[in-house]
Amino acid sequence: MDIALVGIGKIAVDQHVPAINASPDWTLAATVSRQGSVDGVDSYTDFAQMLAERPEIRVVSLCLPPVPRFGYAAAALAAGRHVMLEKPPGASLSECHRLIELARAQGVTLYATWHSREAAMVAPAKAWLTDKTMTRMTVTWKEDVRRWHPGQDWIWEPGGLGVFDPGINALSIVTEILPDPIHLTAATLEVPENKQGPIAASLRFAHPKGADVSAVFDWRQDGDQTWTIEVETDAGTLALHDGGARMVINGQEHRAEGPTLEGEYPRLYANMAGLVATGDSDVDLAPMRHVADAFLLGRRETVAPFHD
Amino acid sequence: MDIALVGIGKIAVDQHVPAINASPDWTLAATVSRQGSVDGVDSYTDFAQMLAERPEIRVVSLCLPPVPRFGYAAAALAAGRHVMLEKPPGASLSECHRLIELARAQGVTLYATWHSREAAMVAPAKAWLTDKTMTRMTVTWKEDVRRWHPGQDWIWEPGGLGVFDPGINALSIVTEILPDPIHLTAATLEVPENKQGPIAASLRFAHPKGADVSAVFDWRQDGDQTWTIEVETDAGTLALHDGGARMVINGQEHRAEGPTLEGEYPRLYANMAGLVATGDSDVDLAPMRHVADAFLLGRRETVAPFHD
Repeated sequence: MDIALVGIGKIAVDQHVPAINASPDWTLAATVSRQGSVDGVDSYTDFAQMLAERPEIRVVSLCLPPVPRFGYAAAALAAGRHVMLEKPPGASLSECHRLIELARAQGVTLYATWHSREAAMVAPAKAWLTDKTMTRMTVTWKEDVRRWHPGQDWIWEPGGLGVFDPGINALSIVTEILPDPIHLTAATLEVPENKQGPIAASLRFAHPKGADVSAVFDWRQDGDQTWTIEVETDAGTLALHDGGARMVINGQEHRAEGPTLEGEYPRLYANMAGLVATGDSDVDLAPMRHVADAFLLGRRETVAPFHD
Repeated sequence: MDIALVGIGKIAVDQHVPAINASPDWTLAATVSRQGSVDGVDSYTDFAQMLAERPEIRVVSLCLPPVPRFGYAAAALAAGRHVMLEKPPGASLSECHRLIELARAQGVTLYATWHSREAAMVAPAKAWLTDKTMTRMTVTWKEDVRRWHPGQDWIWEPGGLGVFDPGINALSIVTEILPDPIHLTAATLEVPENKQGPIAASLRFAHPKGADVSAVFDWRQDGDQTWTIEVETDAGTLALHDGGARMVINGQEHRAEGPTLEGEYPRLYANMAGLVATGDSDVDLAPMRHVADAFLLGRRETVAPFHD
């Protein structure tokens, strides 16, 4: 199936293009970008032109930053195309609701992807937790923004989410593996005095059965990078490391069983092929709602300026 | 029907108690508050005790500030009581979703009230706009915080919403009267350097048919207070003044027809009686989602400190 990729930046080059090229389901038929292109693939700078000239491309994958993304998604849906969204699915919750309505009205697939949910050990962790009683969950997401987001100015701007750009990955895993819904009760956002987005955040959540759930996100992490979720239960401790790639239960490493697609983005594109085939959509806004709640309910503290 | 009122502060004394006392549907059977009470009504300081000792009180109305409200609402629902919530329905969107689930599981009524929607001319404005083509909507909500929220420290704290506490009233009217959904595209939040909540905000929205929709909220308004929504359409201009109490279409004042309950809160309590009678719930989170979007997507500017 032909697919067009919109927004040829770092995440497109690092993840989307290789995943599409390796997929048995997809052919990268066009790119749309003001800056980037992919060798050997028709490139457009005008999205409306691509939609008009390439009616055979039924599926559009959007990996441009969240603020401009809505306009492209709405145009693609209005043109009857199936749409796949990088995370977060929009710059606001209301625009995501609007996209859901548009996709439903057009009878096309909308897939709001959460790539971290496709990390190898997320599904096994979810399965293990199903029948356990959780007493505590601690999320630690600490990385070096200079290393992972070099020169991405938009990430510090309103709508760019700051440290919640990686933090929402953690929340996408948390909301996937937890059998019970949680809600934010308090948050602290540390915002550099020269930036709009937070560079660090700590969150506390209420859990319906009283478990102690908290998260710390920090973009000022030199040296070892940490993307860990630790869960204490009545059957011991489960830890997801490396953003869900590794799982350790009571000190013992577990590995994925059976044949699996290698990597998060190949699985996203396989999921999208399945959704288009069955005519379904998949839009779970829970991770984004938690982020909006943190901005709504969080206490802001001004911290030292940040320079890239 | 017996009702208990929780949180005897300014809004309870000014609005809820008179509305309940004037209602043919309700008897104020108990109050729960750490500070206030109502003459001649049983008063409790411990909510769990009231729920346990007064099983005949099937309905609880919560008018305490949004941050502590969830715990009370969840306890009341868990005890099988019908629950009526002051606006906003919670301190976070996720906790509102949780309340919806709890009410559904218990088979009881949950009513998230938006008192401004009950202003006399909101329904007539909605009816008039149904078949018009809107080109512009301008919301102006300017009031003196010292006059309307004296000493209400919580309103400046995280979760208190700052100027969005009145602003969400405007948004509750906007989302009620507009036939089409809107979504926030940009916002500026002016935050006093000694406060967490904004003292002023300007918002821009996208409209599916291209109308120009914007809002200005300001808490620094001396003298005349303004709560106005102006709508330009292909059939002329509609203006709602005084928070929806007055409607002017093309310069001509319109008044409500037929018998109506006087005032917003009496109508809320009449609505609640109807919902309990039919076993329905009414929870529209759209106004709160727009506020969360403004906190998520808004650019913050630090302004002069505010002292009460």
